[in-house]
Amino acid sequence: MKSLVRKLTENNCDAYVSYDSFRNADMRYLAGFSAYDPYFYVFKNDGNSYIIVSSMEELRARRESSCNVLTRSALNLNSLLQEFDAETASAKMIANFAGERILVPSSMPVGFAKALEKFAEVVVDDGTVEKIRSIKTADEIDKIKHAQEINEIVLDKVIGIIKNSVSDNLGALFLENGEPLTSEYLKEVTHSAYRHYGFDDEDIIISCGKDTALPHAKGSGQFYANEPIVLDFFPRDLKMGYFSDMTRTVSKGKPSEEIVKIYNTVHEAKELAVSMIRPGISGADVHNAVVDFFKGRGYETAGNSGFIHSLGHGVGLEIHEAPSLSVFGKELKEGHVVTVEPGLYYPGIGGVRLEDMGVVTKDGFERFTKFEERLVL
Amino acid sequence: MKSLVRKLTENNCDAYVSYDSFRNADMRYLAGFSAYDPYFYVFKNDGNSYIIVSSMEELRARRESSCNVLTRSALNLNSLLQEFDAETASAKMIANFAGERILVPSSMPVGFAKALEKFAEVVVDDGTVEKIRSIKTADEIDKIKHAQEINEIVLDKVIGIIKNSVSDNLGALFLENGEPLTSEYLKEVTHSAYRHYGFDDEDIIISCGKDTALPHAKGSGQFYANEPIVLDFFPRDLKMGYFSDMTRTVSKGKPSEEIVKIYNTVHEAKELAVSMIRPGISGADVHNAVVDFFKGRGYETAGNSGFIHSLGHGVGLEIHEAPSLSVFGKELKEGHVVTVEPGLYYPGIGGVRLEDMGVVTKDGFERFTKFEERLVL
Repeated sequence: MKSLVRKLTENNCDAYVSYDSFRNADMRYLAGFSAYDPYFYVFKNDGNSYIIVSSMEELRARRESSCNVLTRSALNLNSLLQEFDAETASAKMIANFAGERILVPSSMPVGFAKALEKFAEVVVDDGTVEKIRSIKTADEIDKIKHAQEINEIVLDKVIGIIKNSVSDNLGALFLENGEPLTSEYLKEVTHSAYRHYGFDDEDIIISCGKDTALPHAKGSGQFYANEPIVLDFFPRDLKMGYFSDMTRTVSKGKPSEEIVKIYNTVHEAKELAVSMIRPGISGADVHNAVVDFFKGRGYETAGNSGFIHSLGHGVGLEIHEAPSLSVFGKELKEGHVVTVEPGLYYPGIGGVRLEDMGVVTKDGFERFTKFEERLVL
Repeated sequence: MKSLVRKLTENNCDAYVSYDSFRNADMRYLAGFSAYDPYFYVFKNDGNSYIIVSSMEELRARRESSCNVLTRSALNLNSLLQEFDAETASAKMIANFAGERILVPSSMPVGFAKALEKFAEVVVDDGTVEKIRSIKTADEIDKIKHAQEINEIVLDKVIGIIKNSVSDNLGALFLENGEPLTSEYLKEVTHSAYRHYGFDDEDIIISCGKDTALPHAKGSGQFYANEPIVLDFFPRDLKMGYFSDMTRTVSKGKPSEEIVKIYNTVHEAKELAVSMIRPGISGADVHNAVVDFFKGRGYETAGNSGFIHSLGHGVGLEIHEAPSLSVFGKELKEGHVVTVEPGLYYPGIGGVRLEDMGVVTKDGFERFTKFEERLVL
């Protein structure tokens, strides 16, 4: 939290104030109270931190948070409500408590920020807390590695099912019990498996055939032999809050020559990127090297075909967080946990994406992903 | 959307602009594109609506959204990026497209709003879209009723398990197979049951004994006979997006006289509130009537014991949305779907909450909740 104190000092601010729910990763990281309605977090420039909750939540907040817990009534919200509307009264309460010059995250709702400006100077921060969160501690790295281990157990199970499926004379795939192999079925399997380990897997991608040409299409319906199947798995450890993120592309039977060529090229791109990652290089340099590599092999890198997304992103309490491996990517630092996930997508043909995750180390990159890469099952 | 056009006219604005992901209920309602990274929604004062997405998402956006779909490249973001940082470039792109005076929701991140202010006048809206969403169409009411029907099927299943449990000589409850009856076990049951119907039940409450004195404690561990068990179920229909919300309090065997008395009083409070709801009355009036009722019976209504939360809230694409049945509650209108959920909580003794949900009709309230109320199983 030294960098937050420094930021307050630099900006001559009395406190940092956030108003959000536990769904917000910064609140989870700083305040640690699992309320799904918004509450206040205040970090004063003397290093003390507070959360401000309703009286109803006081006892639960004391159980869960390591911050000082205050209630809105203790800060006289009720008397302020005689004079102001609810939002303005909350803003006045915060200004009374936090000081005259307040640093707020750029994610603060503009409505509340404007209310706060009636009673204090408001300075919009440029992501200090996200930056703090982006450098993972040893404990956080262990939690993310654990998430990755569970992820590989589940991916192995799903790939086993695809491998054991059989196709009819039209290429449609069926389970051993004769039921059709569908995206929906595989998602039920992954969901149950993740739940077993205390993980959730909202919106993961299990797509086949033409759907794979849309990087974020979730997939649906019947799966077919000899077509790419994209498995992009990013479950969250519900208790710890951390994500892992991994993608493999497989095919039951040999896909078209084009897909095989794309697969091998994407693999090479990933390994190129992994070999470049180290502290000091920028995310943009790594991303651009992959763009140049694909161009050199004759693939598009803009529009809606070819390599059309960024190379990677940070992973932690959010599935997408700092740093970025994209044209906007800044300097990579030791402790950054990032994905490397090149892909090539061609509407009408299909898509391939391969994604590994790991941590930037003192002199390189430690890959957490151990899962084998094999296109043809 | 007439009221949004009216709001734009009143404020002399060219367009309404929102920048958020599909997780934001307004975006789900207005834009309907299921992207979990933020994108832009623009509603112009000529009544046309647009979403602005990355090229990667273009094809998927066209599949899903009924808005006009534009890409950031089509709006020249790439050339703006030569001149500005990413956020500023996006803001300039939006100002170029949307106009000189822009209405934004109060939930817009202050960082982006400040960037937008460099290129356009920004007017912060006071919840027009939330107000539009609060009045449910017949189709939405059907979807919420369906969610409530599924909710009752699952609650019935869980209550059946509690009813069939047996206690040892210390009062601990056990399943028929001899395993302990725990919050965790019941949550696995509810989760599987909801999944079967395509619903999710993140963070529902199944608490017993002292935990019930904390209204939002999720519950954990062993359950006991003769103690209150609070079942607050608010699953979401994953496909349609709508929630239902219902609470019942039960006990395996007869609880203390205090709990029985509290239960009956909470039931009376709920029926009092239900009898008052009609268009024209304010949410505050209904809430305050319940406060007065509890006071008249000698219960506290502030601090951390007694009736310590608001009486109810709107339900729709969010679990908590407008209107509010609280001290801040404004006029109720036909088509508002609301909960009525009085409760009484005493640390050391326990808590009771009963919650029904329904729609404000032309001349009263149609209750969706049909589930019986019975304390002692």
